[in-house]
Amino acid sequence: MNSNEHTTLLQGSNQRKKSHPSLPQVLNTNKKKIVTMTCFIVILIMTFFIQMSDGSPFFHHNNTLHSNRKRNVIFFVTDGMGPASLSLTRSFRQFTEGLPINDTLNLDKHLIGNSRTRSSDSLVTDSAAGATAFSCALKTYNSAIGVNPYKQPCGTILEAAKLDGYLTGLVVTTRITDATPAAFSAHTDFRVQEDLIALHQIGEYPLGPVIDLMIGGGRTHFYPRSDSKHVYGTHGTRQDGRNLIDEVKSNGWQYVGNRDEFDQLKMGQNVSLPLLALMADFDIPFEIDRNSSIYPSLEEQTVTALNALNEASKDCDQGFFLMVEGSRIDHAGHQNDPAAQVREVLAFDRAFKAAMDFADNTDVETILISTSDHETGGLTVARQVTKEYPEYIWLPQVLANSSHSGEYTKNKIIEFSRNLKDDDVEDNIKEIIKFIKKEILERDLGILDYSQEDVEFLARAKTADVIQDKINDMISFRAQIGWTTHGHSAVDVNIYAYTNKKNTWYDILDHLQGNHENIEIGQYMSNYLNLDLGKVTAMINETKHSPELSVKDLEKGLIYDDYHHKLINNN
Amino acid sequence: MNSNEHTTLLQGSNQRKKSHPSLPQVLNTNKKKIVTMTCFIVILIMTFFIQMSDGSPFFHHNNTLHSNRKRNVIFFVTDGMGPASLSLTRSFRQFTEGLPINDTLNLDKHLIGNSRTRSSDSLVTDSAAGATAFSCALKTYNSAIGVNPYKQPCGTILEAAKLDGYLTGLVVTTRITDATPAAFSAHTDFRVQEDLIALHQIGEYPLGPVIDLMIGGGRTHFYPRSDSKHVYGTHGTRQDGRNLIDEVKSNGWQYVGNRDEFDQLKMGQNVSLPLLALMADFDIPFEIDRNSSIYPSLEEQTVTALNALNEASKDCDQGFFLMVEGSRIDHAGHQNDPAAQVREVLAFDRAFKAAMDFADNTDVETILISTSDHETGGLTVARQVTKEYPEYIWLPQVLANSSHSGEYTKNKIIEFSRNLKDDDVEDNIKEIIKFIKKEILERDLGILDYSQEDVEFLARAKTADVIQDKINDMISFRAQIGWTTHGHSAVDVNIYAYTNKKNTWYDILDHLQGNHENIEIGQYMSNYLNLDLGKVTAMINETKHSPELSVKDLEKGLIYDDYHHKLINNN
Repeated sequence: MNSNEHTTLLQGSNQRKKSHPSLPQVLNTNKKKIVTMTCFIVILIMTFFIQMSDGSPFFHHNNTLHSNRKRNVIFFVTDGMGPASLSLTRSFRQFTEGLPINDTLNLDKHLIGNSRTRSSDSLVTDSAAGATAFSCALKTYNSAIGVNPYKQPCGTILEAAKLDGYLTGLVVTTRITDATPAAFSAHTDFRVQEDLIALHQIGEYPLGPVIDLMIGGGRTHFYPRSDSKHVYGTHGTRQDGRNLIDEVKSNGWQYVGNRDEFDQLKMGQNVSLPLLALMADFDIPFEIDRNSSIYPSLEEQTVTALNALNEASKDCDQGFFLMVEGSRIDHAGHQNDPAAQVREVLAFDRAFKAAMDFADNTDVETILISTSDHETGGLTVARQVTKEYPEYIWLPQVLANSSHSGEYTKNKIIEFSRNLKDDDVEDNIKEIIKFIKKEILERDLGILDYSQEDVEFLARAKTADVIQDKINDMISFRAQIGWTTHGHSAVDVNIYAYTNKKNTWYDILDHLQGNHENIEIGQYMSNYLNLDLGKVTAMINETKHSPELSVKDLEKGLIYDDYHHKLINNN
Repeated sequence: MNSNEHTTLLQGSNQRKKSHPSLPQVLNTNKKKIVTMTCFIVILIMTFFIQMSDGSPFFHHNNTLHSNRKRNVIFFVTDGMGPASLSLTRSFRQFTEGLPINDTLNLDKHLIGNSRTRSSDSLVTDSAAGATAFSCALKTYNSAIGVNPYKQPCGTILEAAKLDGYLTGLVVTTRITDATPAAFSAHTDFRVQEDLIALHQIGEYPLGPVIDLMIGGGRTHFYPRSDSKHVYGTHGTRQDGRNLIDEVKSNGWQYVGNRDEFDQLKMGQNVSLPLLALMADFDIPFEIDRNSSIYPSLEEQTVTALNALNEASKDCDQGFFLMVEGSRIDHAGHQNDPAAQVREVLAFDRAFKAAMDFADNTDVETILISTSDHETGGLTVARQVTKEYPEYIWLPQVLANSSHSGEYTKNKIIEFSRNLKDDDVEDNIKEIIKFIKKEILERDLGILDYSQEDVEFLARAKTADVIQDKINDMISFRAQIGWTTHGHSAVDVNIYAYTNKKNTWYDILDHLQGNHENIEIGQYMSNYLNLDLGKVTAMINETKHSPELSVKDLEKGLIYDDYHHKLINNN
């Protein structure tokens, strides 16, 4: 128990005393002894009831505790992290760090329940419908960004918070225009409309600017394809020719586009809001591949955001709403890459811990809620590798031996192949085979027991996906880890929570302990901040939010999203 | 909220009032006004602290609430049920019963946390180590029955409860000598020593008889292979020639061996303890295949046990400890049979509900704890059925169309094949193909889109396992459900709880809410009943509990366990 919690507890009892100011006076009136006695007994019983009503299924509140106290909400999304990822990562960490078998992740210590994830049109949700369940507290169709099943915009918790005086932020490791952050800050019929999502995010929407801070990847949708000067990056893809980075800078935003500039933020102590920090054209690399001299960690991004929002709100009546996403747990799941995934989960776990530390060190009532939109990959921590009855084991050593992702090593093979000068195809294949053996399998992946057949397969593979799938399968097979899809699955996902205020802990348990619909999580956060999502919806529901899309437009959009091919066809 | 809970709550506040009898007198003393006021404030604060200490991570009890109140513990084990089974079954039930998308199982409403399952010698446990974690509250090696990692017997919660005056019972749908019930009631180095386990269960062990009631399958280990009279069944397999059924009957046990005799128990109102009810030689059939005129449901078994134990303990100071296992959820997992599994989970859910109803209708403080020993099958509710990027769906209709398990239909095909009289192999194959198409695929499994290739494969399959695996894969593939092993996996499993007493609910939450080691569940139940497992261990730890086993013995044992081949080799 930390000192804040002790302090809180004492404050709590003091407050309760102050809430009954008439008691001493009543006691001083001798003639009213009987009345006094009765009153005290009644008060004792009332105190008992009031206190017992915290955190128990024996009592159910209809509303969260409302007060005028300043509040922060930090909402964490572990995109694509199902329950198997926790067991996998926990045992991996015990193995690599020599920890006892009962050692757990930071997250594990704060499990409160789990969430049902289905969307309005499928038993298996995508991230867009999953995130809209959190942001608008309603079920919608797969691919929907901040719109209801009828494609009408719904007010989000981020928008409602901003309109109510809170500061707001989004922190991700994928594109800031990807489904999860988009669902809090934009309204489009289809997740692939990322150019439009970027416009909404900088305030080109009836509500005006609603985001004070964005840190992530996805620079590509903020500057034009036609930009040949490469001022901000090398892969601008905006179709409309606009340079949103120049635009926001001229409107007074602070812009950060590389590690040096990020470092100048001094972990949030030197930030001028609004802040747009786009650290990569597309995704920030997987943690397992991340070059820390180029890219910050999720923990660094999170701490920067927390400090910046905390500093900027210090003299305000309201705190902040921050959404932090461990975005690429999902990508490791889509790719079926367990070595990448365990590092993504650990990176997320450190970010969660950093936010707990933040909460412990602020006087502002702060809650952390963490959950997933869905599971990705159909991950199971078991795999039958022969037709014989399986042994009951899996081998973390295999993941520990691997120092890069399938995505990274695939790119390395492709680049090596491209640079070969020989005209003779078979000579090139020989070179590639040598490279794959020494550089990729032995050095990067720590696989020494490869077969000639495997190496030949990799060297002669016709597409990048085939190479990546083969590499990830070589790791998974050896670790005896199973996957059943490159898409999502329907398993319930965990809910975690933390707060620096005791009464609020009971309130969280009262509403989110146990098994819940994903929309209840959004509803809880909205109620906790005393927001009216319906009011925001009424302000925007007539908005023509998405221009009609041609198939060509959709195809263009899909080029920049490796993980959700075909999703568009479902709608 | 049910009426009992209301009643309990009021009792609770009355009790608390009674615990401060001096208050009115203090009030009557005018001269002590200041003292009075101070006292009241102190008492208010104390009341606040005492009550706040229930169910909160801000306070941690070192021990459970101890009292002399009579108590019952009903411990449920969902063998092999991982988190994916819940999502699968919930959506299946919504589909088949036309329920809304937020309808949940009884279990769902009582989720409190999840459990880490690894054993002392593997990241992936088996049911023996898993059950010993619950029964002895210690980690041991895979295959260990009530023994520690050094193969020394450990006192179990069932034994300690019996020695402390509680009544005890075991209810299962597999063999009563299988790992889970065995770990509560026997001590052997290897789970396959089921003949020996049966001896321990009828009291041939230093502690004497410790079980008052057993209902399940597994008759085979209670009467001899040499029994040709078929008095009790047709497949007795005891190696030592003893007829334990005759023996316990002559020692005053009530024996029940068929549906008529079970019905005469009148759901537990007409039971004389000790009771041995062995409803099948091996397993009771899967719920999907169960003929209710021959076999009772798990719910009927559970209610019978509860009523019998309740009636027999009604004038005692102590209540009872009952373990109820949804045993064959695990078998459906091993076989990768989703149609069988959803019905097993639903049957279990009904049994859990029946126990909740029991708790609601007794004045005896009763807790229900339900968890799994591990996940089986590497089940995921998603499966990529083509090389194309997967659609985000799964299809409960496929499971609804299926009216029998792979186990049942496999046996039907084998029996049909055996009875063919034709000498011409190809003529027989033609008959089998016709049978498989009409009787098995179309009628039993509701599969109309089979290919000729699939049917030929089934008709020409050389082993029963190959037929069963093919049938279950045809169902799973069509429903888009994935499995990654015929063994177990390492994912955390859910913990559920229910009680009819408010303070106890807080106590359960305080100890088992969140993520826990499986041994903490055993420890909690033991503490709750104020038992001393160490004392029982001291009574038996010198026991020579397992004769040395020859490889031949082990092989013999393995014949009767389809699900755990090769496990023995790990030790």
